[in-house]
Amino acid sequence: MKEIKIAILGMGTVGGGIYRLIQRESKNIEHKDGVRLVVKKTLALAYSVDVPESVKAKDIDEILSDGEITMVAEVMGGIEPAKEFVLKCLKAGKTVVSANKDMISQNWPDLDAAAKQGGAGLYFEAAVGGGIPILRALTDSMQANTVTEIYGIVNGTTNYILSKMDDFGQEFDVVLKEAQELGYAEANPASDVEGLDARYKLSILASLAFHGRVPVDKIYLEGITKVTRMDIGIARELGYVVKLLAIGKKLADGSVEARVHPTMLKKDHPLASIKGSFNAIFIEGSAVGEMMWYGKGAGDFPTASALVSDMVYAAHQEVHPYATFDNRYEADQVIINDNWVTEYYVRVDVLDQPGVLARIAGLFGAHNVSIESVLQKSGSGSAAPLILVTHKANEQDLRAAIEEIAGLSEVLGAPSVIRVEK
Amino acid sequence: MKEIKIAILGMGTVGGGIYRLIQRESKNIEHKDGVRLVVKKTLALAYSVDVPESVKAKDIDEILSDGEITMVAEVMGGIEPAKEFVLKCLKAGKTVVSANKDMISQNWPDLDAAAKQGGAGLYFEAAVGGGIPILRALTDSMQANTVTEIYGIVNGTTNYILSKMDDFGQEFDVVLKEAQELGYAEANPASDVEGLDARYKLSILASLAFHGRVPVDKIYLEGITKVTRMDIGIARELGYVVKLLAIGKKLADGSVEARVHPTMLKKDHPLASIKGSFNAIFIEGSAVGEMMWYGKGAGDFPTASALVSDMVYAAHQEVHPYATFDNRYEADQVIINDNWVTEYYVRVDVLDQPGVLARIAGLFGAHNVSIESVLQKSGSGSAAPLILVTHKANEQDLRAAIEEIAGLSEVLGAPSVIRVEK
Repeated sequence: MKEIKIAILGMGTVGGGIYRLIQRESKNIEHKDGVRLVVKKTLALAYSVDVPESVKAKDIDEILSDGEITMVAEVMGGIEPAKEFVLKCLKAGKTVVSANKDMISQNWPDLDAAAKQGGAGLYFEAAVGGGIPILRALTDSMQANTVTEIYGIVNGTTNYILSKMDDFGQEFDVVLKEAQELGYAEANPASDVEGLDARYKLSILASLAFHGRVPVDKIYLEGITKVTRMDIGIARELGYVVKLLAIGKKLADGSVEARVHPTMLKKDHPLASIKGSFNAIFIEGSAVGEMMWYGKGAGDFPTASALVSDMVYAAHQEVHPYATFDNRYEADQVIINDNWVTEYYVRVDVLDQPGVLARIAGLFGAHNVSIESVLQKSGSGSAAPLILVTHKANEQDLRAAIEEIAGLSEVLGAPSVIRVEK
Repeated sequence: MKEIKIAILGMGTVGGGIYRLIQRESKNIEHKDGVRLVVKKTLALAYSVDVPESVKAKDIDEILSDGEITMVAEVMGGIEPAKEFVLKCLKAGKTVVSANKDMISQNWPDLDAAAKQGGAGLYFEAAVGGGIPILRALTDSMQANTVTEIYGIVNGTTNYILSKMDDFGQEFDVVLKEAQELGYAEANPASDVEGLDARYKLSILASLAFHGRVPVDKIYLEGITKVTRMDIGIARELGYVVKLLAIGKKLADGSVEARVHPTMLKKDHPLASIKGSFNAIFIEGSAVGEMMWYGKGAGDFPTASALVSDMVYAAHQEVHPYATFDNRYEADQVIINDNWVTEYYVRVDVLDQPGVLARIAGLFGAHNVSIESVLQKSGSGSAAPLILVTHKANEQDLRAAIEEIAGLSEVLGAPSVIRVEK
């Protein structure tokens, strides 16, 4: 029996989940995997579960200086002091498991270097998709594949909000408020609804899938705050569902698309039926074809499942594996393609006057954007929404066309643009 | 760079897939994983791809005696000579990757012993769910969980047939014939449509998930040959979809349910939307909750994806891991519970006479089966189908009731019984 003494940094929802899960499943893990996990120390400002006083550490040094502790779970969240603590643990040779997508995605090279320096492992399955074991699937089960496409529903809060808007025809603000009351959205919801959380996760996911670093700040970002119930309703009429997707593609020329934005998906796409707070990741691999993983993307036990499973996995490694893009691939960073090709849904509120459609269609044409279908909805008073779905077009052409269309005197307000995939 | 010289036993669809996939992805695998896979020998009676004569082995001894060959892919199918060859390879210390669910599920203890004797690895991700990496997820990513439920669509042929019967309202025989013409079903379809293939896979899946051997012959088996378009149509009316499911459950008392049979699932269940030849495995874990994996369950490249990924994984192991139920768990075999509790759909064709329903309901009641709903369909002439859906009942009670109901003089033909889950 291999006994591993661990420390937990952060004892909120997830830290408490780890603590309780180890208590509950430790006998089972000993039987199955021959590993005994013992929580020797915890470090936190506040505790979501009861922990004996003797286990509570005063400071990080108490953990760093304890040679018996060989593994540390970091679930504090945020950048500092999490980053400082994790770097110190890694350099001291303590393997770290973490759920901190924010910190990892933005400091990966430093963390990687510290882990190698200390001969420690760095595992973060819990950082993407919560309990869904997508990262290990990429590294340990898809090696025969070149991954060409990723489509992820990786933020439960936004998926819950969009699902509710669709099911009940409610506006974003109304559903957000309700989600906040139910605890599904934070008091400050920006990280979720602006797409920042999904962007951190895509950075990790795409970097591992494409074996080249996809930095957070190179990922195009658009949250769900401007999605209206009208657009969701029209999408439904057209046979689509609106989801906040984290999209990564590796093109034939080796460049990479990386973008987080509201996306219309055909309603029979496997991702379209992922409802509420669930997450799902859909991948296209060169050998395996379509694959999808579905499960709980957040919560105490689902997230703790990934963290504790990482501990057991780490306990079996003679030599810890590291992400493969760092030294073994020719380029440290991928080339980002920001002029992707996709279809577009465009809603323009226009004055109901003759010639408006012709002028708008003309501007699209001038920018090489061809129209697949046009739908005129009845409006109120002299204005009416005009809905256009384009054929495949370049993102930059589309943006140039929209800018000019927005400037037309017959156009009221900013056009609503939602990208259409599959 | 670690160079691994391999042999492929069997060069049909999947063997050819392995050969071509290694050619196509080898540079990529070298970059990402630092492993170079070289096919040194192949052994087959017939070849689906061109292979240089110098690579073709005369017999298994040529491979066994070649000390350079450290890894063997067995994709011959069937029990013999596959079993003999694999046992010899393992004892000679050659790691084996295999897609042979039939051979593995029925000879696991012998294979396991031979692998340990030779210090070789034995990997068979491809045996369940084709390209879906479900087995490694269970062993390497779900360690913090006690798996309590498995529901698998693990046979693409039957899923294709049932999907077609549902979509087009066609009878089993018609769709089977079409599937055979399209190559989706074998000329001798018994292994698929009688559920044998799904049973082999459930044996492997449940054994790993529950950490106790679930022998093939202890698994209840019922294929799809008796499923009628009428039952599928009524299921649809009632809000259900009919799927051939491989079901495993671990009960609180430690006993295990293991059964393969046509099953009605609520149409909003994630498995209900898995169409055509795709596979999906839905699992309930104690920490992670609901999880589902979806992907291609067969085909040259999807299956080769699992086999080649197993090779790369195996190449990184200092000490090969073995299934954990063999020596490390208290019981070698699990206790099978064959009196499971579920709901039932029952269709009885009855003579349209007064008192028939009362007699049938009485027999159910006498066997502790209570009725949730009754639906009388209009029939032809003097006969009419009577549809009953039960509350939760014991399997043995239900069977006893059905046996007596089948003996009633007003009942025409054998009652149709489909178990209802979720």
